[in-house]
Amino acid sequence: MLIGIDFGGTNIKYALVTEAGDARALKSTPTLAEQGPDRVIQRLTDCVGELQAEAKSIGETIRGIGLGVAGPLDFASGVVSEAPNLPGWRNIPLRDRLSAAVGLPVQVDNDANVAVYGEWWRGAGQNSNNMVGMTLGTGVGGGIIINRQLYRGSLGMAGEIGHVSLDPNGPQCGCGGKGCLEAYASATAMVRRTRSLMESGKSTLLTEYVAGDLNRLTAKLIHDACKQQDRLAVQVMGEMAFYLGIGVVNLIHLFNPDVITLSGGMAQAGEDLFAPLRRVVEERAFQRPYQHTRIVQATLVDRAGVIGAARLALD
Amino acid sequence: MLIGIDFGGTNIKYALVTEAGDARALKSTPTLAEQGPDRVIQRLTDCVGELQAEAKSIGETIRGIGLGVAGPLDFASGVVSEAPNLPGWRNIPLRDRLSAAVGLPVQVDNDANVAVYGEWWRGAGQNSNNMVGMTLGTGVGGGIIINRQLYRGSLGMAGEIGHVSLDPNGPQCGCGGKGCLEAYASATAMVRRTRSLMESGKSTLLTEYVAGDLNRLTAKLIHDACKQQDRLAVQVMGEMAFYLGIGVVNLIHLFNPDVITLSGGMAQAGEDLFAPLRRVVEERAFQRPYQHTRIVQATLVDRAGVIGAARLALD
Repeated sequence: MLIGIDFGGTNIKYALVTEAGDARALKSTPTLAEQGPDRVIQRLTDCVGELQAEAKSIGETIRGIGLGVAGPLDFASGVVSEAPNLPGWRNIPLRDRLSAAVGLPVQVDNDANVAVYGEWWRGAGQNSNNMVGMTLGTGVGGGIIINRQLYRGSLGMAGEIGHVSLDPNGPQCGCGGKGCLEAYASATAMVRRTRSLMESGKSTLLTEYVAGDLNRLTAKLIHDACKQQDRLAVQVMGEMAFYLGIGVVNLIHLFNPDVITLSGGMAQAGEDLFAPLRRVVEERAFQRPYQHTRIVQATLVDRAGVIGAARLALD
Repeated sequence: MLIGIDFGGTNIKYALVTEAGDARALKSTPTLAEQGPDRVIQRLTDCVGELQAEAKSIGETIRGIGLGVAGPLDFASGVVSEAPNLPGWRNIPLRDRLSAAVGLPVQVDNDANVAVYGEWWRGAGQNSNNMVGMTLGTGVGGGIIINRQLYRGSLGMAGEIGHVSLDPNGPQCGCGGKGCLEAYASATAMVRRTRSLMESGKSTLLTEYVAGDLNRLTAKLIHDACKQQDRLAVQVMGEMAFYLGIGVVNLIHLFNPDVITLSGGMAQAGEDLFAPLRRVVEERAFQRPYQHTRIVQATLVDRAGVIGAARLALD
């Protein structure tokens, strides 16, 4: 048995995972990140203890622990250099501290890589050799599988798919760049774009959905309005699918992958997103690699992180 | 000893290459592609025969042959599917035909991959783990080294760096897409852009250089004018460096490589190109991976192809 932990700014998800990649009951506990690294590492230690006891009760032993963390880290040393969503986390040797506390080998990587690794191992990327995964959330994260292995780049900073620029004069991105995929295809960007159209006076069902309070606008509501064929929502979804499509074309031309997966809240829009997206890709990409590439919704949803983390431990 | 062959639409370059990657005297003969596949394969066979005799005269034997070809091919089977610059080449089993003719193992790959492989082995990419190479010529070609191996993608069509779109509403590219790097940073694009500025009446030294005949405009002349601080030429070089810089930022964010090399005629512009390019990258890329990445001119020039081809044979 392995332990997989998906350690985010809001929740810690954790599970026993078999060596075949099956996650047993997925557990979750609040991170309470505001309490700082020491208390949070204690909480991670408790999660491991709970799963160790559970494993023992069914006559299994734990071979290793894998952990995905929401923040940039040095993969080789397992040190979290700086995590914007985890107050006080600067140069914290997470891997070694957790390993010392629980007496088991620990592997850590960033959460985007780990989620894509899980999706490759047991989700929509199964049996592919080369895969690119994107997570459309508050931001746009990504991970790359090359020859059946996670590709991390020379410093562990590869796969920043959200920060591929699609228009150097496009909208400002939070990273300092312009026209990054994240500035078009994140939930944040979609809400911002919708809001600006609403403020310019376009009529939409969304005005009613948010009861006149634009602060209540969410990507989920935009998708709901899209399902009702609301003109403004359909326009915003179409724009987002267009830029996402250009981003996918670029990935096909660079990686010639077997599969590209989309996950995260926005990917739940299903064919409302995938149909216009595939039209853009079909029109713009080289035909042979396009026809080879499956462009699909990720299937593991909230289990991708713990399964991918467990895979780190297996490696 | 190995044999490396760089088989282009205009010339066949060929050389004996040691197993350490040193090319002995580089030879060249016209391809005479218009004579069709049979005659050209005979010519390749003659080149091999000449090098075999040369090896024998110095008491060496040939272990294998590698060949880079200017056209898309199926790497696994060694079949050239279709080569725009080689009339009559459709589904020609180049690898097997040459191997049968000379009685030695042959490996083939496309010329862009092979040139980058050579540059990684013995040129500016030496000792790097992860590298991206770009060739700025009539078009923009590329190749990717991941974990010290050429990355070909699932169908052998990865690394199409020239067809990463930098602006989905940008200038039409020959591939059918819009705003591809090739539509900004190829010699063809640079000449087209300069010509259009000249036709709109801008004054420039280039009018004198081409003696009033815009058909005589070349990237080399534009660079010459740039060295004379010609305002229009400097503008065009700056625009090209800008888009190339955005392309480089995207590669850094995706691959987090050790090195990015530029080769081909335009890269000869040296600091006239690299200085403005690095300014763009510095401004837009994530600082840690940017600072890690060497962005340099390729060093092997016309030997990269034969050396990289020989490396295929060594693998």
